[in-house]
Amino acid sequence: MEPIVETNLLSNALKSYQGPPFRVSLDYSDTKMEFGQGDPVFTIHFHTRPAFIEVVVKGDLGFVEAYMDKHVTVEGDLVAALSLGANPTFSMPGYWWINRVVGRIYTLLNPDDPSNARKNIQEHYDLGNDFYALWLDRNMQYTCAFFANPDQSLEAAQENKMDYICRKLELKQDMSLLELGSGWGGFAIYAAKHYGVKVTAYNVSHAQSVFARQWAEQEGLGDRVTFVEADYREARGEFDRIAVIGMVEHVGEGHYHELAEVVDRHLKDGGLTLWHFISRIYPKPTDPFSAKYIFPGGHIPALSEVLPAIEKKHLMVLDIDNLRLHYARTLLHWRKRYLDHWNEVMDLYGERFARMWDLYLSGSASSFIYGELTLAQVLLVKGRPKNLFINRDPYLHPENVVPRWNY
Amino acid sequence: MEPIVETNLLSNALKSYQGPPFRVSLDYSDTKMEFGQGDPVFTIHFHTRPAFIEVVVKGDLGFVEAYMDKHVTVEGDLVAALSLGANPTFSMPGYWWINRVVGRIYTLLNPDDPSNARKNIQEHYDLGNDFYALWLDRNMQYTCAFFANPDQSLEAAQENKMDYICRKLELKQDMSLLELGSGWGGFAIYAAKHYGVKVTAYNVSHAQSVFARQWAEQEGLGDRVTFVEADYREARGEFDRIAVIGMVEHVGEGHYHELAEVVDRHLKDGGLTLWHFISRIYPKPTDPFSAKYIFPGGHIPALSEVLPAIEKKHLMVLDIDNLRLHYARTLLHWRKRYLDHWNEVMDLYGERFARMWDLYLSGSASSFIYGELTLAQVLLVKGRPKNLFINRDPYLHPENVVPRWNY
Repeated sequence: MEPIVETNLLSNALKSYQGPPFRVSLDYSDTKMEFGQGDPVFTIHFHTRPAFIEVVVKGDLGFVEAYMDKHVTVEGDLVAALSLGANPTFSMPGYWWINRVVGRIYTLLNPDDPSNARKNIQEHYDLGNDFYALWLDRNMQYTCAFFANPDQSLEAAQENKMDYICRKLELKQDMSLLELGSGWGGFAIYAAKHYGVKVTAYNVSHAQSVFARQWAEQEGLGDRVTFVEADYREARGEFDRIAVIGMVEHVGEGHYHELAEVVDRHLKDGGLTLWHFISRIYPKPTDPFSAKYIFPGGHIPALSEVLPAIEKKHLMVLDIDNLRLHYARTLLHWRKRYLDHWNEVMDLYGERFARMWDLYLSGSASSFIYGELTLAQVLLVKGRPKNLFINRDPYLHPENVVPRWNY
Repeated sequence: MEPIVETNLLSNALKSYQGPPFRVSLDYSDTKMEFGQGDPVFTIHFHTRPAFIEVVVKGDLGFVEAYMDKHVTVEGDLVAALSLGANPTFSMPGYWWINRVVGRIYTLLNPDDPSNARKNIQEHYDLGNDFYALWLDRNMQYTCAFFANPDQSLEAAQENKMDYICRKLELKQDMSLLELGSGWGGFAIYAAKHYGVKVTAYNVSHAQSVFARQWAEQEGLGDRVTFVEADYREARGEFDRIAVIGMVEHVGEGHYHELAEVVDRHLKDGGLTLWHFISRIYPKPTDPFSAKYIFPGGHIPALSEVLPAIEKKHLMVLDIDNLRLHYARTLLHWRKRYLDHWNEVMDLYGERFARMWDLYLSGSASSFIYGELTLAQVLLVKGRPKNLFINRDPYLHPENVVPRWNY
């Protein structure tokens, strides 16, 4: 039977397509179509007609669910394949609209009030430390690395990232550092160990908090680093510096004012704070796949969504850095390691989960390379401290002597 | 006669004052008061009671008009004195409210539609090239310099600024560069001379355009640089790069979407654009002094006011740099040169103007050091070009070999 509906739909949706060349194979009817210029870099196989319909009707979410269930498979470059959903030259009728509405529904079902925050974070991070240890670096850094060159190892690039943040924050011996959202504790421990700061770190994940405390003890830093298992809004005290790494994505849409308020309240006058977060190049609701499967309650904001909160507290932007392709590279490293441990993941959580997590890593890499994601490092200062560096050279070259202003 | 009303008002307004210590002298009644901790760094003299009342009733605008008319004088550090109006611990009843309302009225009277744009710009820039030449550097740079060290000369720091922008834009031989708002042509000429680019520059000021064309001819660059005397919205053609230096302040509140549209329309895919502009740390109406005397129709935006326009066109923020204290230093240089030419200014425009312009330069320096102004350099890219630098090192160290991504 000729799949006339499918071929018409695809021809129309892709008639102005610009992007990685690819092939669609409707395996249930032995039909193949090619799109784009050049040799196809991937082939999307639809194994059943209902799977094709599911994708058309449910948009991205339909695709990922069909993929998880192996009704759809991809041969070749999965990262390139996952750029299709956000490609503006791909115009499946209704596809955009579907993604927006479905995404919005999941966000509304998962608001980020403190009780949900714990549940939302636990869903993601309490998967098990062992699972993350399979594919993260030895410092358990689950945020964008910073590569000195494209071939640097992930291990080195993650340490480089932590050091970059320490340098931007101008950490000095015995300063007090507050960390909001501290993951497995890697950054808090790094800062205490290499810069001699005293760290108080907040995190709502029980599994992560237990892990972080044990790790700090092993490093002999139990007295320098305190991990508090609590919401960031429960922070207490005044600090010289505040680090907010991979946290803005989790606080949820509409909570940036709360975050800025917490930071302002606990930061000393003249203090620096760095916010390292995934950002979109323009505001858009959370995609339905992330909202349902990966980060319930999360939202990736554009800068224009976060800045009003920062400005309202009169925190001053000193520097905004974009590490977009560093995150693409980080994700490709993670995915490679992840695929190396495929059988262990299958044993732990089964094939559907294993395929879902691959989609998440590949799709994220795809969004940084082809799509709308960037990684923002926003450095802020409270008040008007004297003696600021005259330029940003020390961030990349701590060995250089850079003058300071005396205003 | 005891000025009991004045002393009560001042004691109340300044009872929680924190800032540079100072003295108020009500010369018409031989009354002196001191505020702040330490030796006074300036004294504000009120020579008449009506002048005091004018300041209370009209806020900042009352102060500057009384100052221009010499009913108020300042002995000592004028830059520190001018920090008072924006000091949050100075709380003259109604003072804030007065400033906001008066500022808003002047902004409404001077909207920036294309016909007004020309008038507004002419009012400021057609004062006469000779006047600006008195106190600007030899490249006629009327925007923030970039100092390699605090003691660098203004001449060198302005060339350093232009080169910094050329490096951020990655200008190369024979690239096409569009400049929107080109002043006396210094940057366009610098870029053509040192980077071999072909420049098309738009400016509505007649006096500036004539000056710029003559200068380009003198430099033998008449065929590389075209100065068009027209509004930026009349730009034509497609360009590799777009520079927007000291222009965002002039386009006016509510016109950022137009600016982003013009930039997006005329920038090639993969092209870079740099916006260098004075920015506030939070949104606020234009102050009445600037609105009435200095920049009618202008508005200094917070980042949150400009970013939605940038994001709407899907331009991606690569980098935001804050040169705040470089502008303070630039203004202190300008003021010193200006005061060195005081008598010539008096001859050209009279004492009231001379005092007004001093207030403008001193008050601006004050706002960068003590107040709410910063200088943002926002670097944007259109699309997803491959081969971006892996980090920002080349902006400060063009001699360093920095790898590029191959995504």
